[in-house]
Amino acid sequence: MALAPSGHRGYARTMRYFEDLEIGAETHFGTYAVTREEVLEFARKYDPQPFHLSDEAAAKTYFGRLSASGWHTAAMTMAVIARKVVAEEQAGLGSPGIDELRWLKPVYPGDTLHVRGEILDATPSRSRPEMGSFRTRTTVTNQDGIPVMTFISIVLIRRRPTVEPSA
Amino acid sequence: MALAPSGHRGYARTMRYFEDLEIGAETHFGTYAVTREEVLEFARKYDPQPFHLSDEAAAKTYFGRLSASGWHTAAMTMAVIARKVVAEEQAGLGSPGIDELRWLKPVYPGDTLHVRGEILDATPSRSRPEMGSFRTRTTVTNQDGIPVMTFISIVLIRRRPTVEPSA
Repeated sequence: MALAPSGHRGYARTMRYFEDLEIGAETHFGTYAVTREEVLEFARKYDPQPFHLSDEAAAKTYFGRLSASGWHTAAMTMAVIARKVVAEEQAGLGSPGIDELRWLKPVYPGDTLHVRGEILDATPSRSRPEMGSFRTRTTVTNQDGIPVMTFISIVLIRRRPTVEPSA
Repeated sequence: MALAPSGHRGYARTMRYFEDLEIGAETHFGTYAVTREEVLEFARKYDPQPFHLSDEAAAKTYFGRLSASGWHTAAMTMAVIARKVVAEEQAGLGSPGIDELRWLKPVYPGDTLHVRGEILDATPSRSRPEMGSFRTRTTVTNQDGIPVMTFISIVLIRRRPTVEPSA
């Protein structure tokens, strides 16, 4: 029986490491209810373009009515992902970046975002044996099942600590 | 002398359209002061991973001390860009997406972000003659001139309204 190395005792058995990743596995992270109050609060602070501030200005554009900043949609998505990652004690080390982020459809107050992710691939680090990285495709759909945002994220994660071989 | 078409009189001369874009032009959008209070507020709401919530948890990671969520850095960057875009009355129509977003270095409370952008290319829409798109490379540096984030954004923009030829 493999014992958790000293210093990791107690949580090593539940913590999820690089070795626990399953390529192709899909995770349903959860949902996020989009409110008008939060859409306006985020837009005033971070993206005060007219179509993110009022129905009247948005009516003159593709959006049609007040819609969330794309960066707000990304933040709400991260909230859903982070909640689960923290609860599951994934040994994540942050992200070096995002590829192919696409805002496909407007996100409106009253929408419910559904967030799911698929693990695309996983690569051990060459220079740092204690870690690896993986890529996931995140897809966000609204309550009608229509995709509103997708992106690919690169995530760094610890490798499972190994017990030193005994002499 | 070209006159602004009816309905655009008064602001058509200051509004910046697709035709006003200069490929290769670099814009200094401005700065954003990162505060500990805001870093914590954003992280609690949207990215509650331990290294974005306390110096103690961050000390055990690459970050070293409390650092901003990457999505928060993106939002603060958008705040700087949006302020200028709204002030200059750019005829923007939103963004379909972002490519190659990279979080290069941690962003810490007390940092000042400097945001600049370079227009990479501009393309008239084939299907919608009233609009076009352009791509910009956004670079965010801290107060020491060290790049902390870069991304390429795709932006939709109106074409300059033309006067109908008289009969």
